[in-house]
Amino acid sequence: MHISIITVIPDLLQGPLQHSIIGRAGKRGLLEIDVVDLREYGIGKHRQVDDYAYGGGAGMVMMPGPLMACIESLQAIRSYDEIIYMAPDGRLLDQPMANRLSLKGNLMILCGHYKGIDERIRQHVVTMEVSIGNYVLSGGELAAAVLVDAVGRLLPGVMNDETSALFDSFQDGLVAPPVYTRPARFRDWEVPSVLLSGNESAIEAWRYEQALARTRQRRPTMLQDE
Amino acid sequence: MHISIITVIPDLLQGPLQHSIIGRAGKRGLLEIDVVDLREYGIGKHRQVDDYAYGGGAGMVMMPGPLMACIESLQAIRSYDEIIYMAPDGRLLDQPMANRLSLKGNLMILCGHYKGIDERIRQHVVTMEVSIGNYVLSGGELAAAVLVDAVGRLLPGVMNDETSALFDSFQDGLVAPPVYTRPARFRDWEVPSVLLSGNESAIEAWRYEQALARTRQRRPTMLQDE
Repeated sequence: MHISIITVIPDLLQGPLQHSIIGRAGKRGLLEIDVVDLREYGIGKHRQVDDYAYGGGAGMVMMPGPLMACIESLQAIRSYDEIIYMAPDGRLLDQPMANRLSLKGNLMILCGHYKGIDERIRQHVVTMEVSIGNYVLSGGELAAAVLVDAVGRLLPGVMNDETSALFDSFQDGLVAPPVYTRPARFRDWEVPSVLLSGNESAIEAWRYEQALARTRQRRPTMLQDE
Repeated sequence: MHISIITVIPDLLQGPLQHSIIGRAGKRGLLEIDVVDLREYGIGKHRQVDDYAYGGGAGMVMMPGPLMACIESLQAIRSYDEIIYMAPDGRLLDQPMANRLSLKGNLMILCGHYKGIDERIRQHVVTMEVSIGNYVLSGGELAAAVLVDAVGRLLPGVMNDETSALFDSFQDGLVAPPVYTRPARFRDWEVPSVLLSGNESAIEAWRYEQALARTRQRRPTMLQDE
């Protein structure tokens, strides 16, 4: 998979993309990411990429010209399955969307900043608008990093133990059950005895019950959807 | 505001915390963030912080011992209003939650990794569990960075133009209206004429209508909540 990320703050993305599982995926050649500095396509000697909003009001808007120049120069190199704009009012990212995107070949992600990008690019060029949640961030970079992580970790071979993703929260329509590790007694707090029993079917039943109870309490809509 | 972030991948957070608006807030002394490497509290010469899950299964679990040692060493320096665990099944971050957290003094954020942290720490020590969305990430670091950004940008003085946050998506119960900037005609695509009219009340009415229509289409539940 190849992901191109267009941003005005390329440095912000270095840490998230070089470390953790996504960095490893890059080193193994499973996921190729290029971070493109929009300012290289900016206008004039100040490399301007934004301007005041028509109609007035606070906050800058990213101009259509530099964005289109950047997008078209990337499209000259490869074709993209989706041109994704990270937007607070986009479609909410969830696990099924991450699963679907992990099957694509090439993705382009636009990170907005300030008040966002000119609406004409959203209408005519962007193929998919994605929000990572109902809150506002100072830019689309972190949202893009979240999307890349959620999608990238699902690529075959990225995780050390391939069975691991299958038991994640959400993959089976339930949140994950509680997990415990050593020591069995920490301060006054003990691990549930069933987990120490060695009885595999009892452990499996307990985990399913816990996952179901926790889903009912914390994500009741996940059960209603079925 | 002071935020302490406990993580096994401190480098991942350098970019997000040094750049953008959050980096500026730090330089101006409005937001102090320390990133604490959990491995400094790890066990033995390998600085172990995780172990296999009781009951078996793929994925490692973060041990209670190093986490408690780390948390208590931070609590010896200052008291914390909340000890937040970033968890996929935590309470979903939204704008009202970001607003409320921006009024706190000191926050501690625990970033889980692999299968997460030992349940006993969640039960007995963590005061708040936060999820940035219904999807799984490879760790809590990006989620923590998202939370810090969503909260940090709301602190007084952090944004250049203080009026800006008030007109964000979600702050008035609506998503933001479309925005446009120069040029007025880009390729065949024109800016809506009302925005070029100079008629402030017509512009305001248009923006409200657009925001309402867009909210109805993209976030209908935001309107039902009222």
